Amino acid sequence: MTGTAFAELLAPAEAMQPASAALPSMIERFVNGAADAEITLRAKRAALDDTCLVPRVLQNVSVTDSTMDLLAEPVAMPAAIAPMAYQEAVHPDGELGVARAARDAGVPFTSSTFSSVPVEEVAAVGGTTWFQLYWLRDRGVTAELLAHAESAGCTALILTVDTPRMGRRQADLRGSFKLPEDVRAAHFDHSAAGLPNGPQGGVSAIAAQTTSLVDPSLSWHDLEWLREHTQLPLILKGILHPQDAATAADLGVDGLVVSNHGGRQLDGPPPALAALPAVVGAVEGRCEVLFDSGIRSGTDMLKALALGASVALRGRPVLWGLAIGGEAGAHRILDLFRTELHSAMALAGCPDLDAVRHLATMNRMLPLPAEESRR
Amino acid sequence: MTGTAFAELLAPAEAMQPASAALPSMIERFVNGAADAEITLRAKRAALDDTCLVPRVLQNVSVTDSTMDLLAEPVAMPAAIAPMAYQEAVHPDGELGVARAARDAGVPFTSSTFSSVPVEEVAAVGGTTWFQLYWLRDRGVTAELLAHAESAGCTALILTVDTPRMGRRQADLRGSFKLPEDVRAAHFDHSAAGLPNGPQGGVSAIAAQTTSLVDPSLSWHDLEWLREHTQLPLILKGILHPQDAATAADLGVDGLVVSNHGGRQLDGPPPALAALPAVVGAVEGRCEVLFDSGIRSGTDMLKALALGASVALRGRPVLWGLAIGGEAGAHRILDLFRTELHSAMALAGCPDLDAVRHLATMNRMLPLPAEESRR
Amino acid sequence: MTGTAFAELLAPAEAMQPASAALPSMIERFVNGAADAEITLRAKRAALDDTCLVPRVLQNVSVTDSTMDLLAEPVAMPAAIAPMAYQEAVHPDGELGVARAARDAGVPFTSSTFSSVPVEEVAAVGGTTWFQLYWLRDRGVTAELLAHAESAGCTALILTVDTPRMGRRQADLRGSFKLPEDVRAAHFDHSAAGLPNGPQGGVSAIAAQTTSLVDPSLSWHDLEWLREHTQLPLILKGILHPQDAATAADLGVDGLVVSNHGGRQLDGPPPALAALPAVVGAVEGRCEVLFDSGIRSGTDMLKALALGASVALRGRPVLWGLAIGGEAGAHRILDLFRTELHSAMALAGCPDLDAVRHLATMNRMLPLPAEESRR
Amino acid sequence: MTGTAFAELLAPAEAMQPASAALPSMIERFVNGAADAEITLRAKRAALDDTCLVPRVLQNVSVTDSTMDLLAEPVAMPAAIAPMAYQEAVHPDGELGVARAARDAGVPFTSSTFSSVPVEEVAAVGGTTWFQLYWLRDRGVTAELLAHAESAGCTALILTVDTPRMGRRQADLRGSFKLPEDVRAAHFDHSAAGLPNGPQGGVSAIAAQTTSLVDPSLSWHDLEWLREHTQLPLILKGILHPQDAATAADLGVDGLVVSNHGGRQLDGPPPALAALPAVVGAVEGRCEVLFDSGIRSGTDMLKALALGASVALRGRPVLWGLAIGGEAGAHRILDLFRTELHSAMALAGCPDLDAVRHLATMNRMLPLPAEESRR
Repeated sequence: MTGTAFAELLAPAEAMQPASAALPSMIERFVNGAADAEITLRAKRAALDDTCLVPRVLQNVSVTDSTMDLLAEPVAMPAAIAPMAYQEAVHPDGELGVARAARDAGVPFTSSTFSSVPVEEVAAVGGTTWFQLYWLRDRGVTAELLAHAESAGCTALILTVDTPRMGRRQADLRGSFKLPEDVRAAHFDHSAAGLPNGPQGGVSAIAAQTTSLVDPSLSWHDLEWLREHTQLPLILKGILHPQDAATAADLGVDGLVVSNHGGRQLDGPPPALAALPAVVGAVEGRCEVLFDSGIRSGTDMLKALALGASVALRGRPVLWGLAIGGEAGAHRILDLFRTELHSAMALAGCPDLDAVRHLATMNRMLPLPAEESRR
Repeated sequence: MTGTAFAELLAPAEAMQPASAALPSMIERFVNGAADAEITLRAKRAALDDTCLVPRVLQNVSVTDSTMDLLAEPVAMPAAIAPMAYQEAVHPDGELGVARAARDAGVPFTSSTFSSVPVEEVAAVGGTTWFQLYWLRDRGVTAELLAHAESAGCTALILTVDTPRMGRRQADLRGSFKLPEDVRAAHFDHSAAGLPNGPQGGVSAIAAQTTSLVDPSLSWHDLEWLREHTQLPLILKGILHPQDAATAADLGVDGLVVSNHGGRQLDGPPPALAALPAVVGAVEGRCEVLFDSGIRSGTDMLKALALGASVALRGRPVLWGLAIGGEAGAHRILDLFRTELHSAMALAGCPDLDAVRHLATMNRMLPLPAEESRR
Repeated sequence: MTGTAFAELLAPAEAMQPASAALPSMIERFVNGAADAEITLRAKRAALDDTCLVPRVLQNVSVTDSTMDLLAEPVAMPAAIAPMAYQEAVHPDGELGVARAARDAGVPFTSSTFSSVPVEEVAAVGGTTWFQLYWLRDRGVTAELLAHAESAGCTALILTVDTPRMGRRQADLRGSFKLPEDVRAAHFDHSAAGLPNGPQGGVSAIAAQTTSLVDPSLSWHDLEWLREHTQLPLILKGILHPQDAATAADLGVDGLVVSNHGGRQLDGPPPALAALPAVVGAVEGRCEVLFDSGIRSGTDMLKALALGASVALRGRPVLWGLAIGGEAGAHRILDLFRTELHSAMALAGCPDLDAVRHLATMNRMLPLPAEESRR
Repeated sequence: MTGTAFAELLAPAEAMQPASAALPSMIERFVNGAADAEITLRAKRAALDDTCLVPRVLQNVSVTDSTMDLLAEPVAMPAAIAPMAYQEAVHPDGELGVARAARDAGVPFTSSTFSSVPVEEVAAVGGTTWFQLYWLRDRGVTAELLAHAESAGCTALILTVDTPRMGRRQADLRGSFKLPEDVRAAHFDHSAAGLPNGPQGGVSAIAAQTTSLVDPSLSWHDLEWLREHTQLPLILKGILHPQDAATAADLGVDGLVVSNHGGRQLDGPPPALAALPAVVGAVEGRCEVLFDSGIRSGTDMLKALALGASVALRGRPVLWGLAIGGEAGAHRILDLFRTELHSAMALAGCPDLDAVRHLATMNRMLPLPAEESRR
C-alpha cells in the first residue's frame, strides 16, 4: 500500500489486511501472533463486540471535548501508545515515526525496554514519553535503565508484571524468528557476549532474550526497591485480578493497565473488558486504571471508558499503520481513532469524557433477562 | 424482477436479494448499509430471532382485528412507514408510490426532511402523513419546514434525536455517493449556493448535507421552542436509554421511537428490542412507544408489541419493495406484513392487539434457567 | 435406499438424508418443511442439544424396563406416533404400514383427521389407536368423525389446538403442493363439490383444506360440547403456555401435548423443551404431559422425560423410515429408538422410567454460573 | 510423521492430525470416535475454552513446582495416564511404551482390564502403575484380576462405573472393528471358546467383549465385596452427579474421576468441567477428585485444578503421540504437557499447585453480568 493508499483507510481495523500483506511473514507473526491456541485473541474481540453502549440524546454535542489530564499531563484523547518492542522491524521509521505520530496526536508514547531506538532519541521527538520496564535479573542494569529513562525526560514508568517469562507464542517456538540484521535492542549490548539476535536453544530471539534477561522472581515487596530508584509515577501493566489491583492501590501505585498482553502470555485469561469492572471496583479511585487489549475503534474506546477505564492503550493497529505507511501511516491510524472517538461521543450524547464515563452498558448476549420480561 | 415477479414474494425478507440486485451498487449501499463495522445491524436481528412468543390456544381467532388508534387516528395495523430520505433514488415512484401504498394499507407515511418530493404532494395522496424533522442550524428554516408540514396536513411530527451528526457509514465515507441527477431534497435549495448534491470534503452528499444543515447543539430545553412553533403531536425518534424516555415523558411528548437508526448511527448500541422493555417501564404509559429496527415479518411485529411497543415502524423492506416494483412493490410488502401479522395473531391465539400485548416472551438462548430445572 | 440398506441405519437421524433423496421434492417439503423462516425448526434442536442429562452410576441396570401405562393402557416405551396427514403420499404402505410398525413396537398410533386410510382400517391392524381431531366448522361432520373413531376402537382423542389456521409454510404457499392422484383424505368427500386435492386460491391443497374445513372460532368452553360427544380420554395437542396448561387441567382433560407443531405453525414460539418445565409445574400431576418436537434419539427421549414429560411423540423420523422402507423402514426407526432408549437408560443409571423422571438436567450453555465458581 | 518430526510438535493438540493420518481408519475411529451424535465430544471442549483463569502477578515464579503427593505417592505433575484398552493396536510399543513414557514423566500409568500387555509386564517397567477394573460377570475371574494386579505391584484400583454396557459408538456399530491379528486382551483367553476378536452379533469386537464380560448389575453395595478382595486404594471413574460423589465419599472411597468417558458412553451428559464444582462441593475433601475429558494443554490442566480437581487424566493425546512416535512420541506429548503446565503456572502467578487451586475462574460467555455493570 503506497503513501496515498493508506489515506483511503476508513477505520483502524481496515489496516490489518494490507499491513499483514506488506510485512514479511516472520514479522507479521511477531506483530499479530498470540500464545498457544490464541483463544484469548478471539475472546477479547467477542467481549468488546458483545458489550453495548446505551446512548443518550439531546445533550448538545456541538463540541465534543476528548481532552483530559493523565498523570498530571494533558492528553488530547484518552489514549496512549502501548509499549511494543523492536518497531524498526516493522518499518524503518520505527519508534521515532510512531513517537512523532503520537506527539502530533497529543497522546503519550511508551518506549519499550526492547526498543530498537534509545529512549533519549525517542524522547527528543517531543510529546509525552513513558518508559516501559522489564525488570531485569541484573538490578544494576535495571537501575541504569531507570536512570537513562528519567534523564531522557520520561514522565512515567510502566512496569510489565504479566511476563515473568515469555508466553508460548507458536511463531516464536517454531524458532524461526530472528531480528533483522539492522534491528537491535538499543538499550542492550548485542556483541557476541551479549543479547542473542537469533534463535537460541530452540526458541526465538525474543523468547531467548526474555529468558536470559527478565527476572521471574519479582514479588510485591520488590516494588519498594523500584520506588527507591525512581521518582517517576509507577504504572503496573498486566493486572486482571481485583485483589492484585487492590494490593497495587494499597501500595500507592499511580496506575494499572488491565491487560492480557494481547493474548500473548497466558492463553485463557478473561477478556480484559470482562475483568475491568471488578478491577475498577477494587481500586476505588485510588489510581488510574488504563485499559489494553483489542481496541480497534472509537466505539471500543468508549466501551472501555464506560466500564471505568481512564484511557485505552493502542497497540497492534498503530503497528499496522506503521507497516503500511511509516510515520504517516501511524499518524493516519491515530487520526482515525480521534475521528471515530469524536463521532462516537457525539452519537452517544457525550460532550466530554465525564459523560462517557457515565454511559450505561449492557451485554448483547443477555438481552432480555427473564425477570424483565413483562409477564 | 418484473412487475409480476414480486407478486411471488412470500415474505418481506425475500425482497432483499432481488432489490439489492436491482439497485445500482451506490444506492444499494445507501439503502442497506450501516455504520462502522455493522455490528448493530447483525445484533438487532439476533435479538429478534432469539426472542420467543409463547402462544395461547382456544381463544376464538375466527376474526383477528389488527386495527387500533394511534395518536387519535385509526390505523389498520400497528405499523407506520419510517422516515427515509430520497426515495426517488430507489425508484421513480419514490415517496408518492410508498405513500400511496401506505394509504392503501391504512398506515401512516412519514415524510422525511430530506424527501425527494415535497411534503404537500405526499400529503395530497391521502392517508395519514407524518413529518420527520431534522432540526436545522437555521431556526428560521426549521420553523418554515414546520409550517410547511402543518399546512400540508401532517398530523404528527417525528423529531429525530439520534443524529446530531451522521454516523460513519462506510459507503458514505468512501465518498462515492452522490444524488442521481434528477433526485433532489425537495424542501431545500439545490442551487450552486445551496445544498451539495455530490461528495464534498471527502464525504458523501448525504453526510455533507447533514453536517451543513443539522444542528448538533440541541438539548432537552430546546423542545420548548419546538412546542411554540407547532401544534402537532411530537414524537422523539432514537431513544434507547430509559432515563431519556422518562425525561421525554416528563416533558409531555406524545411518543417515542425506540430505535438505533437501523445501525446507521452509533455502532454498538443495544438491539432496539433489548432496550424496549426498560423504556416501556420508564414511560409508565404516559406516551406511545413506537419501535424501529429490524422488523422483517409479522412475527417480529408481535414480538415488539408483546414487549410493550404500540406500533412498529417499517423501513428497509418497504424500500426493497419499491426497488423491485415501485408503488406496487411497496404495496406488496405491506400486504405481506398484514397477511403475516394476521396469521401470527391467529396462531398465537390473539383475536386483537390487546391480546398481543399480553403475550409472554422468553429468550431462546436462556431456555432452562438452573433454578427451573426440577431437581 | 433398498430394503436391506435401511437395516444399516444406526440412528433415527441418519434416515433423514436418504428419505429426502427418495421423496419427490414436493413431498419432501411436505414432510420436512416448516413455517416462515424456519427459526423454530432450528431452535428446537438447539434446545435439545444444549440440555444435558446428569447420569447416575451403580444402579443395577442389568434390566432396563421401559414399559409404562399410558391412559390405562400398557405401552412398551414412552412413545407414541404423532398424528401426521396423508402418509400414503410418502409411501404406498402409508398409515397401515406405520400402524403395524407401531403395533409391533408396542406404542400407540395416532390416526389423523386427514389420514389417507380410514381410521377403522388403521384400528383393525391391532395395537393401540388414537384419533386426532381437527375440529371442523361443521359440527355434524365433527360428531360423525368422533363416532367413527370411537366405533373403530380408538382409545383416545387428540384435539389439535394450535391450528386455528394453517401456518405459512413456504412450500405450501408456493402453491406447488397437490395430493398425488391416488392419495385422498379418507374421511372426506373428494368429489368435485368436496375437498380440494390441489392448489386453490394460490395456496396448496393442504392449506386450502384447512381453511375450508377447520373451525378457527374454538374456545375453551367448546370443550364441553366435545365431552358430550365422546367418551374417549381427551388430549389437547399444542400447549406451550403454563396458564393454558392449568386451564386444561382445571377442565379435566386427560393429557396435553407440549408442542410447537414441529415449527409448522407460529414461527417463533419457544422450543417445546424450554416450555416443558413450566407446563409440568402448572399441571401439578393432574393429567399426562406428552412431548412433541424434535426427538431424534433415545437420549432426546430421556431429556423430555427428565424434564417432566410422560411420553414423547415421534413424527418426522417415522416418515423418513416409511419413505425409505415402507412398513419395514418405519419399524426399523422405532426399533432404533427402542435400542437407543434402553442404551441411554442403562448409561444414565436408570433401570426404569421412574428413575429417568428423577434424572437431573443442566444447560450446557450455562456451565459455570458465577456464584458456583469457588472463589 | 517420522521419529524426528514429532519433535517439532509444539502443543499436544497438534498431534491429532498427524496421528489420525498415520492410523488405519478403523483404529483411528477406535481412538477418536465417541458415542451417538458426538455432541458430548464437542461440548467438553467448549466448556474448557469458555472457562477463563484469572492470573495473579508478582508472585515470584522463578521456580514453579508441579510436584504433589497422590494417594501417598509423589507425582511430578498433577496428571496420570487414563485407562485405555489395546494400546498395541495403536503402535507396537503399546502399553509398555506409554508406561515407560509415564514413568519418565513421573506420572502414574493405568493398566486397562483390556490391556494388550499383561499388567505385570507393565508394572515391571517401573514407575507407578494403577489397575483399571471392568467388574466382570464372573466374580471369580474378577477376583483373579485383582490378585493379579496387586501381586504385579499396582498401587491403586480404578473401577469404571459408567460402563454397565458399551456406548453406541457409531464406528463400533458399523461392525467394522476387529482386533488386529497380533493384538489380544492379555488378561483373557482368546481361544475359540473365549473372548471374541472380531465383530459378533453385528457389533464390534470391543462391544461384543463388553457385553459378554462386564457385569451391568453392579450397585453401590457391591463395593463391599470389592473392599474384601483388595487392599488397594479405590477410585471410582465416571462420576458426574454430586449425589453419587457424596455416596462414594460416604462409603470411604479414596478417589473419584469426574468423567464422561470422553463422550464414548452416554451422549448428552454435562461437560466434565461443568460437573466438577458440584462434585468437589459434595465430596467436601473426603477423597481425591480426579478429572478426565478433553484436556489438551497445560492451561486446561490449570482450569481443572482451579475448579477443584486433584489431577487431570490424560487420554487421547497420549495415544496420538504413541501413534506417531511410539514410546518417544508418548514421551514428547507428556513433555509438552509438563512444559506447558510450568509455563501456564508461571504466567498465572502460581509457584506451586496450592496457588493453582486458589486461582479464580470465570465464564467467558458471561463476561458482564448486568448487576456488575456500573450504572
